[in-house]
Amino acid sequence: MSAENPDLAIAQAATLKPITEIAERAGVPAEALVPYGTHKAKVDVRRMTPTGRTGRLVLVSAMSPTPAGEGKSTTTVGLADAFSLQGHRTMVALREPALGPIMGIKGGATGGGHAQVVPMEDINLHFTGDFHAIQIANNTLAALVDNHLHQGNALNIDPRRIQWKRVVDVNDRALRKITIGLGGPAQGVPREDGFDIVVASEIMAVLCLATDLEDLQARIDRIVVGFTYDRDPVSVADLGVGGAITMLLKDALLPNLVQTLGGTPALVHGGPFANIAHGCNSLAATRLALSLADITVTEAGFGSDLGAEKFLDIKSRLGGLSPDAAVVVATVRALKMHGGVAKADLAAENIDAALAGTANLARHVQNMRRFGIEPVIALNRFPTDTDTELEAVLGWAREQGFRAALSEVWAHGGEGGLAVAEQVLAAIEHDRPDFHHLYDPAAGVEETLRTLAREIYGADDVVFEDRAPAQLRMLKRNGWDTLPVCVAKTQYSFSDDPTALGAPTGHVLHVRDLVPKIGAGFVVALTGAVMTMPGLPREPAALRMGLTESGESVGLF
Amino acid sequence: MSAENPDLAIAQAATLKPITEIAERAGVPAEALVPYGTHKAKVDVRRMTPTGRTGRLVLVSAMSPTPAGEGKSTTTVGLADAFSLQGHRTMVALREPALGPIMGIKGGATGGGHAQVVPMEDINLHFTGDFHAIQIANNTLAALVDNHLHQGNALNIDPRRIQWKRVVDVNDRALRKITIGLGGPAQGVPREDGFDIVVASEIMAVLCLATDLEDLQARIDRIVVGFTYDRDPVSVADLGVGGAITMLLKDALLPNLVQTLGGTPALVHGGPFANIAHGCNSLAATRLALSLADITVTEAGFGSDLGAEKFLDIKSRLGGLSPDAAVVVATVRALKMHGGVAKADLAAENIDAALAGTANLARHVQNMRRFGIEPVIALNRFPTDTDTELEAVLGWAREQGFRAALSEVWAHGGEGGLAVAEQVLAAIEHDRPDFHHLYDPAAGVEETLRTLAREIYGADDVVFEDRAPAQLRMLKRNGWDTLPVCVAKTQYSFSDDPTALGAPTGHVLHVRDLVPKIGAGFVVALTGAVMTMPGLPREPAALRMGLTESGESVGLF
Repeated sequence: MSAENPDLAIAQAATLKPITEIAERAGVPAEALVPYGTHKAKVDVRRMTPTGRTGRLVLVSAMSPTPAGEGKSTTTVGLADAFSLQGHRTMVALREPALGPIMGIKGGATGGGHAQVVPMEDINLHFTGDFHAIQIANNTLAALVDNHLHQGNALNIDPRRIQWKRVVDVNDRALRKITIGLGGPAQGVPREDGFDIVVASEIMAVLCLATDLEDLQARIDRIVVGFTYDRDPVSVADLGVGGAITMLLKDALLPNLVQTLGGTPALVHGGPFANIAHGCNSLAATRLALSLADITVTEAGFGSDLGAEKFLDIKSRLGGLSPDAAVVVATVRALKMHGGVAKADLAAENIDAALAGTANLARHVQNMRRFGIEPVIALNRFPTDTDTELEAVLGWAREQGFRAALSEVWAHGGEGGLAVAEQVLAAIEHDRPDFHHLYDPAAGVEETLRTLAREIYGADDVVFEDRAPAQLRMLKRNGWDTLPVCVAKTQYSFSDDPTALGAPTGHVLHVRDLVPKIGAGFVVALTGAVMTMPGLPREPAALRMGLTESGESVGLF
Repeated sequence: MSAENPDLAIAQAATLKPITEIAERAGVPAEALVPYGTHKAKVDVRRMTPTGRTGRLVLVSAMSPTPAGEGKSTTTVGLADAFSLQGHRTMVALREPALGPIMGIKGGATGGGHAQVVPMEDINLHFTGDFHAIQIANNTLAALVDNHLHQGNALNIDPRRIQWKRVVDVNDRALRKITIGLGGPAQGVPREDGFDIVVASEIMAVLCLATDLEDLQARIDRIVVGFTYDRDPVSVADLGVGGAITMLLKDALLPNLVQTLGGTPALVHGGPFANIAHGCNSLAATRLALSLADITVTEAGFGSDLGAEKFLDIKSRLGGLSPDAAVVVATVRALKMHGGVAKADLAAENIDAALAGTANLARHVQNMRRFGIEPVIALNRFPTDTDTELEAVLGWAREQGFRAALSEVWAHGGEGGLAVAEQVLAAIEHDRPDFHHLYDPAAGVEETLRTLAREIYGADDVVFEDRAPAQLRMLKRNGWDTLPVCVAKTQYSFSDDPTALGAPTGHVLHVRDLVPKIGAGFVVALTGAVMTMPGLPREPAALRMGLTESGESVGLF
């Protein structure tokens, strides 16, 4: 087991501190701690008195991911442990992993090596049930919509214009396009439909952006489930079921407390994907961490073009956050792939390819600068990297005037993150972050997308095709044209073409649909071929999973 | 709030003991207790040494339910509290409520008045996530089946003969009959499909019948998901994903510990519906209770024709259980409805109707006697009952030579159950239970159904229609004809016609399908119009639900 799954083996071998001890270290009072077993808990923020303090916020992003892996969560966790070692009161805020992808392709979201959040099995499986609660809240609402159609349709909902889809936390391509309500008058109203994965649910976004239970209900009430035959929007408030849906999410709204292998308190809460959703852990968790810790290290999904952009333009705007520093994670392997090397050839030293791949990394650094933040490059060491390759990349960064340091947290935990931690503190002190949003949503959805395409993706133009032009008119008609935009786009490229590695320019962003998410408070722009329901591969990871005789998981990563 | 929801008000007003104290009272060692908050926990039976003891087992069933309510869970809980008051070391073993029906029609499964298991909000909502785990395990398997079709179909599965359906814990009629895999070659293989409610999942049955983790995996591996073009069965073992599915259920297999309002330890675990599944809490919970307590009071869903029959013929057979006593719950209101009174007229005294309705109750008593058990009638008092009505029914029972007592647990908790408790103890001591199963499955599915129809349902004949005749041949061909039978039938009548109240005779049982559940170890017989996916009513209970400013639920019951 250990040879095949070093991360799982390290996590299972670790001696965890009781969650009560972690809570004490974090400053969470005993009366606010709701234990789930001995090593995980929810924090009932309603039972805490606000500290009035706000610590430093460090955002971890990465270069564009490749199949070689970049280790963003690993770096986030290791960096936090490094700050802890330096004596800073530190917390981590991370997203919860989704189950569906875990069954598909090896890899998860709890870090790796000696930089993990634990208990990793629990976090990667059902954890405290938040995703399950989101799923049933989402699907209860869907059933109530279809029941409304079936029971006389008093609101005059057009079955062809229902935009509320059902969700499962499973990669299930066969549910992408379906027809429901078949079988005659007793079985509902037939219509076209489809399932998304849970992380794409607007309920997930709403939960992650809600400031408290009252705001959660207000957001849920604002969710638009579809349109009438007269093209008027129909909201959850119109259906009168916002209370029931909120009730199902009451516990899910509370941040989850766990620990890193280095004993740093970690809030792992909420998990929208960054390629199809806004990509950050809950605002509730980030705020809680900021109110307790001197330094909060948080992560946003994928690169500066996805999670980081959405963290800075959507979550920070809605939540009044102001990041003090940022980290862009890079690896020699990913650089080599962006430099043209095939995955099979990654083990061979190739300095030229690594340097060619820096074009991708440089774009991410420049993207962060557009928000007024001078980022630190964390070069995450892999066992196959040669010293010459690592030094070449660090030398390149120095030449460009970029802050950079080697990260060895996979092998050494917090100790391996001290060099990056020092650069981050130096950036906060000397580079004087001057955070601002990239765009003003008042300019309208079309202009916002042009700004994103030009400034962040390096595109020359944006085309609105398929349903997008009509949806743009619909957004304007309903007064939703000045909402921030959450772009659904491939994570593999700055463009909407996953094969365009490096730092593509001169391309065109294809926007094929615009979906109003009024509860979340943004408009989702679907670009390229990105899908909100993944599929399983030919050889799903599920084939390798199981339990030992003593009940320990195997094959999980 | 309290006026409209007395059960919720009583439950929310109660002062609960810490779950650690309840565990100590139950004899669960601290190292085996996995707390979920302060008032619920899972019991990790793998960390306990077997006590070697087996206490008395009391099974609570009821007359055929009516919209008037019979209070079976209430009686179960109150009876246990009565035994506790008498100084017996007592435990309750109950099913977990399903969420879907709670959103549809007022009413739940945690008891009522002063005879409830608590914390009732938690138990009725997500509890410890067991149903969610079952749902995702079920749906992960479904996605793996469809992915197998999509990725080349090496096992030669016939898409028209897949019997593994997806599930949600939502009453969602629009998902009963659907088509999936639409949209072209990238979106899977198109086929007809449908969703069941979670409680009908074979995973639910398997979890509730598994003796341990090893047995769970063996059962999951045996599950038949469909058939090849050559009509050979395809199992989970053939797909090679039994390990992954079992891993998802690792925690769900552990019984949940809560408490009654009287402080009796209660195991609430597993929850197959009795009308569409086998209707009993998990074998793991029942066995744990029997090993710890002197008296275990458990409940099986609906009447002697459904939950009790399945408890005695399926669960007891597979788990080696031997009930020592049984209770049949009755109410004057339900008797009056079976005697022909409309729901609107129930408040008026009507002794003749109540006595006419005893035909239904008498059949249930006789059914229990067929298993060698002399049951006790618990006449559950409602506020509208008159003393004359109650005395008339108790007098009738005495005349018939039936054991009977008044139950006042709704109003008085355990004190109100002492009279029934005394009758139960007397039955164990004097009536010498001689438990045996009703049928020998070796006689074959057809003969088993004829026996059930004749002896339990009072039918004259059984007809096999629709898919049933072909399925019967299929069962024989595959050697599955000698499995026990789990009948899916309306709960409202002994017959398959929900409008035939009282004690119908001369009717015909219509078996329209037979579904092999090889993992569970039984064959499901679908009769009449019973469906495995309910729908929501015109005015769903969800419309009345919500949260107070302090975050307490309202409208939940």
